[in-house]
Amino acid sequence: MTNYPPTLVQLIKQFAKLPGIGEKTAIRLALHVMRSSKDEADMLAKSICLVKEKIRLCEQCYGLTDQPVCQICQNASRDNSIICVVEQTDDLASIEQSGAFKGQYHVLHGTISPMNGIGPDDIRIPELLTKVSKGSIKEIVIATNTNVEGEMTGSYIAKCLASYDIKISRIASGVPIGSDLKYIDQLTMKRAMENRHTFE
Amino acid sequence: MTNYPPTLVQLIKQFAKLPGIGEKTAIRLALHVMRSSKDEADMLAKSICLVKEKIRLCEQCYGLTDQPVCQICQNASRDNSIICVVEQTDDLASIEQSGAFKGQYHVLHGTISPMNGIGPDDIRIPELLTKVSKGSIKEIVIATNTNVEGEMTGSYIAKCLASYDIKISRIASGVPIGSDLKYIDQLTMKRAMENRHTFE
Repeated sequence: MTNYPPTLVQLIKQFAKLPGIGEKTAIRLALHVMRSSKDEADMLAKSICLVKEKIRLCEQCYGLTDQPVCQICQNASRDNSIICVVEQTDDLASIEQSGAFKGQYHVLHGTISPMNGIGPDDIRIPELLTKVSKGSIKEIVIATNTNVEGEMTGSYIAKCLASYDIKISRIASGVPIGSDLKYIDQLTMKRAMENRHTFE
Repeated sequence: MTNYPPTLVQLIKQFAKLPGIGEKTAIRLALHVMRSSKDEADMLAKSICLVKEKIRLCEQCYGLTDQPVCQICQNASRDNSIICVVEQTDDLASIEQSGAFKGQYHVLHGTISPMNGIGPDDIRIPELLTKVSKGSIKEIVIATNTNVEGEMTGSYIAKCLASYDIKISRIASGVPIGSDLKYIDQLTMKRAMENRHTFE
């Protein structure tokens, strides 16, 4: 890397800070930028600056947006009476990608994690409770991750909401579609067996 | 991807244009930029612009530099009587990394490739011949790639320089250090056998 000019080394170092980008990939990216047209490079640089300037959290669901309220919350055709609770904005994007959910979201931005000193009030749980207390919500779908912290956070939310007359559901766990049963871990298989349902 | 705000989608698209970066990686990179500090993002954007502004080819060796003449050509401690001929600036960096060469370089920026209509005058061969004709060069090390075009380009340069009283050498081909003989391809093994030398 030291055999490249300082300006290029600077860019290589910047690229290498990105997640999953090692020195060799950073060099390849930097050389690509160097060989691309000035317009293309400017466009990339400008996009980076714009993201930092414009992207913020939606005032309603705390998902990502470049407006005060995100496209999903603004969408009048979605069902406002059902809220899907996710840990991170990536999870929201993944659920949206599936097209299986047409309600609203609530992004917690974390999980309860006593080991790391993160309690319910450090993530967006109070905001969720406030939403529910307003009375128009009929169902909360808990779509936190299936690890210890995700399950704990889900349980905590379910407990907090128990006094309200709403449905509280959890996305199903089980064998991923297309996977080979012989490679499924025991816990997943146990869950798939426990959650078995009538053949459709 | 369409579930992210337009500003973010714009950056994802820009990242996805880079070599070896698919949509998933582009999303990860864009989210990282979004989460990083404004200073870090600005630094990345600025580095991209600077590379396009400042990086140019060295007037002497045609390697990359941000000055008129590169650091290697400016280095008084290097041997100016020996020139290593490489195809690309990456090859130069790779040889420098090894620390095995202390002479000067000449970057061809391509190979002779009749299939693609690239002749000797389309790459920096005339400039190399001019350098040699000035008389102070004692050795040319041909370090083009070991594929058909690289070998052809090397042979052509060797032929052009045959009339000069200088040494013309070729970097050795053979079994890579640390590799397992049973996985070596036949051509490499044949070359390694042909080029065998006295045991040191």
